[in-house]
Amino acid sequence: MLGEVISIGDELSSGQRLDTNTQWLSQRLAEVGVSVLRHTTIADDLDACVAAFRNAAQSCQVIVVTGGLGPTEDDLTRQALAAAFHRELELDTDSLTKIQRMFEERGREMPASNRVQAMFPSGSAVVPNDYGTAPGIDLPVNDNQCRFFALPGVPAEMKQMWEQTVVSSLDAFVNKTGQSAGALHFHTMKAFGIGESDVELRLPGLISRDRDPKVGITVSRATITLRIAGRADSDESFAKLIAPTVAEIENGLGDLLFGTGNDRLETVVAQHLLSQQTSVATLEIGGASFLGDCLANVLGKSDDNYRGGLCFRNVDQADNYLRKFASLRNQSTERPNAATLSQTAEYWTDLCTAVREHFDADYGLVVAGYPGETEMASSNGTFPVNIALASDSGAHHETRNLGGHPDVLPSRIAKFGLDALRRFSK
Amino acid sequence: MLGEVISIGDELSSGQRLDTNTQWLSQRLAEVGVSVLRHTTIADDLDACVAAFRNAAQSCQVIVVTGGLGPTEDDLTRQALAAAFHRELELDTDSLTKIQRMFEERGREMPASNRVQAMFPSGSAVVPNDYGTAPGIDLPVNDNQCRFFALPGVPAEMKQMWEQTVVSSLDAFVNKTGQSAGALHFHTMKAFGIGESDVELRLPGLISRDRDPKVGITVSRATITLRIAGRADSDESFAKLIAPTVAEIENGLGDLLFGTGNDRLETVVAQHLLSQQTSVATLEIGGASFLGDCLANVLGKSDDNYRGGLCFRNVDQADNYLRKFASLRNQSTERPNAATLSQTAEYWTDLCTAVREHFDADYGLVVAGYPGETEMASSNGTFPVNIALASDSGAHHETRNLGGHPDVLPSRIAKFGLDALRRFSK
Repeated sequence: MLGEVISIGDELSSGQRLDTNTQWLSQRLAEVGVSVLRHTTIADDLDACVAAFRNAAQSCQVIVVTGGLGPTEDDLTRQALAAAFHRELELDTDSLTKIQRMFEERGREMPASNRVQAMFPSGSAVVPNDYGTAPGIDLPVNDNQCRFFALPGVPAEMKQMWEQTVVSSLDAFVNKTGQSAGALHFHTMKAFGIGESDVELRLPGLISRDRDPKVGITVSRATITLRIAGRADSDESFAKLIAPTVAEIENGLGDLLFGTGNDRLETVVAQHLLSQQTSVATLEIGGASFLGDCLANVLGKSDDNYRGGLCFRNVDQADNYLRKFASLRNQSTERPNAATLSQTAEYWTDLCTAVREHFDADYGLVVAGYPGETEMASSNGTFPVNIALASDSGAHHETRNLGGHPDVLPSRIAKFGLDALRRFSK
Repeated sequence: MLGEVISIGDELSSGQRLDTNTQWLSQRLAEVGVSVLRHTTIADDLDACVAAFRNAAQSCQVIVVTGGLGPTEDDLTRQALAAAFHRELELDTDSLTKIQRMFEERGREMPASNRVQAMFPSGSAVVPNDYGTAPGIDLPVNDNQCRFFALPGVPAEMKQMWEQTVVSSLDAFVNKTGQSAGALHFHTMKAFGIGESDVELRLPGLISRDRDPKVGITVSRATITLRIAGRADSDESFAKLIAPTVAEIENGLGDLLFGTGNDRLETVVAQHLLSQQTSVATLEIGGASFLGDCLANVLGKSDDNYRGGLCFRNVDQADNYLRKFASLRNQSTERPNAATLSQTAEYWTDLCTAVREHFDADYGLVVAGYPGETEMASSNGTFPVNIALASDSGAHHETRNLGGHPDVLPSRIAKFGLDALRRFSK
């Protein structure tokens, strides 16, 4: 079954904004058995949209459209779908009520322009949007031989709607056409601390196209995702089908694997802390403070497992603060400055120990050396990062040279800190 | 003059790799006066390439193709161009010599398969490639009314070839056909604290499609971008052309506008702090600590304008900490608990004042009420957020109910804190 992904918007066709939805959707379409033939991006233009939709329906059976569902005059996807396939636009009162309620919850009255978001081409179904005012459109055309899914361009909304509604409707559509054996199942395994090509070296033959079950490897923000896909009649038979593949991956990657499914490093670490009833406090130095985000965010509001965090721009600031308010050792005035001290492992173990005591936590975690935007802009190389972790059994320190794209590097650095906590809190 | 960008490759259509060339090329085409009508991405398939090329030549005058110029069997761009426009493929001996020399310089013999890279559709010109073995193709079709430029997919090679050869050929072509009135210019204005549809209410008629200059409105992570586009012969005449539009936007949005071009809230705030030589310290309560990220990240490593940050999961933790280590008032043991106190504005102004003093900063900024993942998962509504800012002229406090998609909400909340700092530090 062939597919096309169409994205709509002047901001995309003009190059003002980079489209990342289409890549994500192409990966998801492959997973449900749709080969993507073409991507098309068009400006906010009714005739161009109509032509693109008709053209897509001639060669593809599944077309996913993103963008153009907003409330403004330049949002034309619903009108273009109606025009391309000779449908009327009809009001869906349930959708209208939902949109009005969303505005009420935010203490605002719905602008009249948002009413258009409750209009649907006749014969289409609503794809609910729990996070925004634009519901999506599920429109069968060509005597139900071809199916359009129109989703908002906001990636978070689009992805949630895909997972919640589109993927199962699409699987049913693909199955109905009789090309599939059993429902599509996925099993996801996650690894950290290794590159994509190293995975392939450790697991030769895993990524062959003809392999059954298929394994897709993707990297996102330094986390490796191995997604095993196969068709099976039940969860049990799927588990049996993939067992040898899972064992092969576990043998090849060992402790680099940190979880499955939707696990993230921080959720795995939070589970350790909750099950052991231990706590952590953090100190971050440089241009970011991701540890606090990651850990506080995944722990419950009343959980005291995250004791608190400090962040500073440079080591001197942290050093001054911890000598003033905490128990950082070597307080004599003849003490070398922080820049000199920070060349030694001992300094970092002192720092994480001071953080642990200051916040009365079981673990004191320090990640130092996040480059700020200025430093990243003036270097394509790597940056020295110090990671130090204190616990009741002593302190661990490591220095790593880490590099990567500026958009990804800070969270990549934070993840090495989280991964140290994961390994030592197990 | 209308343009299309076509990218070719299974790795793109399948979503394995993200295409960034097309965005870059669309921006460059706009600069030479070509409005990009469409982007198309197709798999390595001869028929699909031929169809896409013919389709493009029907509606556009400038078509830039990337990818498919390699030496392997799945590289089909030159064959598809020849087939689409009924040309023979002819050997260019200069190109062949150059390719052979490149291999010699690397100490290798040219594989026979690379000979195809010296084959060109009749009537085309060579676009030299100084960094790789694949020269590009400059092919006029439709009685010289339409021009194809085929370039390699490797971004570094493609960009160098564009700058060195394509841009001037294209400019000559665009001028000769006399359809352009100056190059397309963009002016970008940024606003925060308002929704997309509210912008339209405040600025009726601004986004009409027939408007000249055109104004596009986009939202990304709660920031509104207004992009004014117009054709002009120079920066000066463009500035004159858009002056009434800029004034209309400034009148309509007032203090909601925070910058232009690539400005972000945090870079604008950092500029305030740097130019006034003032400093800020932050306290964040809840499941995130974005203020530290944003501010430390955009300030230089030696700048002391960001004094430091604290983050906690809940108000009690922050309250305990600031009573123990800082000067948070009302330390008597009969004092009501933090949960009760935090219902009053006075408590928040006490907190931000304590933070300001604790870090010896000019501004003490508190953002409290980031929902963690658990809270966001169990509610699609809004969350009460307290923002408090202390300066030498007193303290400001506001409570807002903020909602949105979980992926976006924490940074949206942080931006309201940054925006308070922007407004009060001006």
